[in-house]
Amino acid sequence: MNPITTDRRHFEDLALGEEVALGSITVTKEMIVSFAREFDPFPFHLDEEAARRSLLGGLASSGWQTAGLTLRLLTDGFLTRIASAGGLGFSNLKWKRPVMKNDTITGTARIIELRRSRQHPQWGVLTVDLDMRNQHGQPVMSMKLANLVETRHPEGAPQKLGAAS
Amino acid sequence: MNPITTDRRHFEDLALGEEVALGSITVTKEMIVSFAREFDPFPFHLDEEAARRSLLGGLASSGWQTAGLTLRLLTDGFLTRIASAGGLGFSNLKWKRPVMKNDTITGTARIIELRRSRQHPQWGVLTVDLDMRNQHGQPVMSMKLANLVETRHPEGAPQKLGAAS
Repeated sequence: MNPITTDRRHFEDLALGEEVALGSITVTKEMIVSFAREFDPFPFHLDEEAARRSLLGGLASSGWQTAGLTLRLLTDGFLTRIASAGGLGFSNLKWKRPVMKNDTITGTARIIELRRSRQHPQWGVLTVDLDMRNQHGQPVMSMKLANLVETRHPEGAPQKLGAAS
Repeated sequence: MNPITTDRRHFEDLALGEEVALGSITVTKEMIVSFAREFDPFPFHLDEEAARRSLLGGLASSGWQTAGLTLRLLTDGFLTRIASAGGLGFSNLKWKRPVMKNDTITGTARIIELRRSRQHPQWGVLTVDLDMRNQHGQPVMSMKLANLVETRHPEGAPQKLGAAS
C-alpha cells in the first residue's frame, strides 16, 4: 500500500489527455481460485478441468477480479497521488479477452473529462478511460471511471495538457 | 456456495421482465477493512476516525466491495441456477449512497433484454438491471450486467413473461 502523500495533486493540477502508465500484476492460480470462492464461485474459475471444458479454454480469472486488480493498480499508481474524495461510478466496462492463469496485466489510464461539480464547486469530477492489456499487449478489459477530486480553490480550472511543468 | 444444479434454466426458459429477489448480506467492519486493504486502500475505508472526517461521514465499504457482494448475491440467487457461460461486461454502474458499517444490502435483478448471439447462435445474451438497497430501502447501487447463457436449441426463443407456467 502506498502512503497517501501530502503533496497530492488537486483538480487544478490535472490535465485533459494526460496518460498515466499503471504498474503490473501477475495473476496466479491461487489468486484466481481464492477470489472466485468469495465472489464468483463458478466451476470454470475454480477447477482446471472444468475450465478446460468451458468457453474460457483454461483457468481464467473472474472478470470482476480483473476489475478489482485494475482498481488496485489505479489506486497505487494514480488515485493515491491525487486528492481523490471517492468514486462515483463507471460505465462501459468490457471484458475483451480472458485473463488466464499466470498472465500479467498492466494498462494505461487516460484523463478524458475534467469538470467542476455543479452542486459542490469544491470538487471536480475526473473521468478516466482505462485500457488494460496482457503480457502480449492484447486488450483484456476497458472501462470509464468517474471520481471526485478536491479542488485547491472553488474557481480553479484544470490544466491544459503540456502547461503543467 | 450453491452447487450448480443440473436442471439449470437455459436461454429459452428466461422471460423478459422477470424479477429475481436476491438474498442479503450484512457488511461488517472486518469485511470493509479486509477488502480495502487488498483492493482500495484509502484511509476512509480503513480507519474509523479518517472515515468520520471524510465525505462518507463514517466507515463505509469500497463501492467495489458493494459491487463484488452484489455479484455474489446474483451468482447464488440467479446465475448458478441458469446455464450461464460467463459475463460480457456491465454498464451504468452508479454508487448512489455509501454502504456503512453494519448495513445490510439486498436487491432485485430484472431481466431487461434477451437476444440471440449473432455470431454464436448456441448462446443468448441476457441483460439484467440490478437495483441494490440498504436495510432502510434506500438505493445504494445500480448497474446493468450482460451475461452469456446457453440455449437448448440454436433456434429457440425466450419465454414471454407469464407463459412460463
